[in-house]
Amino acid sequence: MKVCVIGAGAIGSLFAGHLSTVADVFVLTRRREHAQALNDQGLTVSGKHDFTARVTAASDPRDLPDFDVGIIATKAAGLENAAGSLAGRFVGATIMTVQNGLGAEEVVQRHGGWPLISAVTFMSGTKHSDTHVEYILDTATWLGPYGETPYERVQELAQLLVASGLKAEALPDLHPAQWAKLIFNATVNGVAALTGLPHDAHFAAEGGESDLGHLVHALIDEGKRVAAAAGIELHDDPWEMNVLATKRGSAHYPSMLEDVEARRPTEVELINGALVREAERHRVDAPLQTALYRLVAAREASYS
Amino acid sequence: MKVCVIGAGAIGSLFAGHLSTVADVFVLTRRREHAQALNDQGLTVSGKHDFTARVTAASDPRDLPDFDVGIIATKAAGLENAAGSLAGRFVGATIMTVQNGLGAEEVVQRHGGWPLISAVTFMSGTKHSDTHVEYILDTATWLGPYGETPYERVQELAQLLVASGLKAEALPDLHPAQWAKLIFNATVNGVAALTGLPHDAHFAAEGGESDLGHLVHALIDEGKRVAAAAGIELHDDPWEMNVLATKRGSAHYPSMLEDVEARRPTEVELINGALVREAERHRVDAPLQTALYRLVAAREASYS
Repeated sequence: MKVCVIGAGAIGSLFAGHLSTVADVFVLTRRREHAQALNDQGLTVSGKHDFTARVTAASDPRDLPDFDVGIIATKAAGLENAAGSLAGRFVGATIMTVQNGLGAEEVVQRHGGWPLISAVTFMSGTKHSDTHVEYILDTATWLGPYGETPYERVQELAQLLVASGLKAEALPDLHPAQWAKLIFNATVNGVAALTGLPHDAHFAAEGGESDLGHLVHALIDEGKRVAAAAGIELHDDPWEMNVLATKRGSAHYPSMLEDVEARRPTEVELINGALVREAERHRVDAPLQTALYRLVAAREASYS
Repeated sequence: MKVCVIGAGAIGSLFAGHLSTVADVFVLTRRREHAQALNDQGLTVSGKHDFTARVTAASDPRDLPDFDVGIIATKAAGLENAAGSLAGRFVGATIMTVQNGLGAEEVVQRHGGWPLISAVTFMSGTKHSDTHVEYILDTATWLGPYGETPYERVQELAQLLVASGLKAEALPDLHPAQWAKLIFNATVNGVAALTGLPHDAHFAAEGGESDLGHLVHALIDEGKRVAAAAGIELHDDPWEMNVLATKRGSAHYPSMLEDVEARRPTEVELINGALVREAERHRVDAPLQTALYRLVAAREASYS
């Protein structure tokens, strides 16, 4: 089985490193030096697992062989370019998207007729260098068919991920999981970006009047009302996901918080913007999620 | 006329410097070096006005003579200590408070039976050193009687401030002005602290869906509903204050934004907390102001 991972940030590197133990793995990077470094030094995974993988990397898609499965693991902001770079090629491949927010599949579809697999991942890692990723949260990736993609193909890929040492689960319909993650993500990333708090116990605290947990709870409840109006029965309760996550030993540093601290563009449009637009589409009031969206957008505007 | 200014931050220094041109001015500082520097070098005002004032400063209230008017110009967080340092003394004095938020008068009252004058100020300055303050916004200070204080005494002090070169106005009832400033302040300071934006054109922008002005407007509307429920007819419309302020040449840097950038305690309890508590007291829903309050409180919690 030939797998190509497009985008080697933390998530892409975790997929590529693990899959290399059970498949031939190719990595498409944006920068040539990044590909060069991976070819020279391999890809080291530390943390929950510990090994160095051999991968074949390229920064030009013309240097890639045909592959069976492509995993686009860029951030949502890099998705358009990543999908564009595959256009007109790799006709036998099935492509998996794993971006935050909603609508990644539609973006890829505009660039080619590949069968698509939707995914959301809850694993996390920290990229220490171009050739070293630390595997921090070994939580699952959920996969589901998109459009006409046969469910068996989804199950095969989930099995491959599990065989590689990652946690993965195939679901016949991913919407309930995507939406649960969307609501969780919009809330936790937005609040972390504004407050400077990592995802810690403050997010679940509902004792005192000024406690942050009240707000987090109300934001999640709004999100759940949007999901209900959209006809989605959530796979997990985002509030329980939140409480559970804050009980882990070390607090997770949400990517939107990392982004605002580095004064980088965030995924606010694709996460919070997507949820707010769904609320409008289904005519559900979501004043708090809308406020969060505007505050993070304004935080980005403050960079300039 | 003998005036004592208690607290020589930016606002206290602006009062002390200007009043020294029409009265004998004493300054009570927290730090001994600060008093020493003022006694040695005088107090320089630059910006809108330009002069160096002679003041008599002390860090121990026992070194102060009896005075006619005391102006407590500390931040709200320093009010309790400042009022405590006057307890049992200066029985002939009238005391003016000018803290952000609500309830400063009650704090002072617990320390002595002085007649009180309430004030809110819209002037602003930047303290460049212990002996140099820049006068930036030459907007007015509004004064009103508290409790049984005769209105004539308020008018006299307003006249003295005007004679000293500052803008000031006496009002028979200060509540409408205090509340207008409270709503303005809670909104603008809170949003600035979270977004990193100075008080600029973003705060009045209501074009695009993600524009911040929508949120600012909704926050102010909530505040106005609280004021209405409390029976207060606002002296000015905080939304118009906001629009007007963002049209000035240079954007003002709200103190709460300075505080969070320096990772200092903010006035969130005294400003946003006060507004939220008034909403509860009058049973008015204020979900957005409550969210803002909790987010800024959480931002403070992120320091540690």
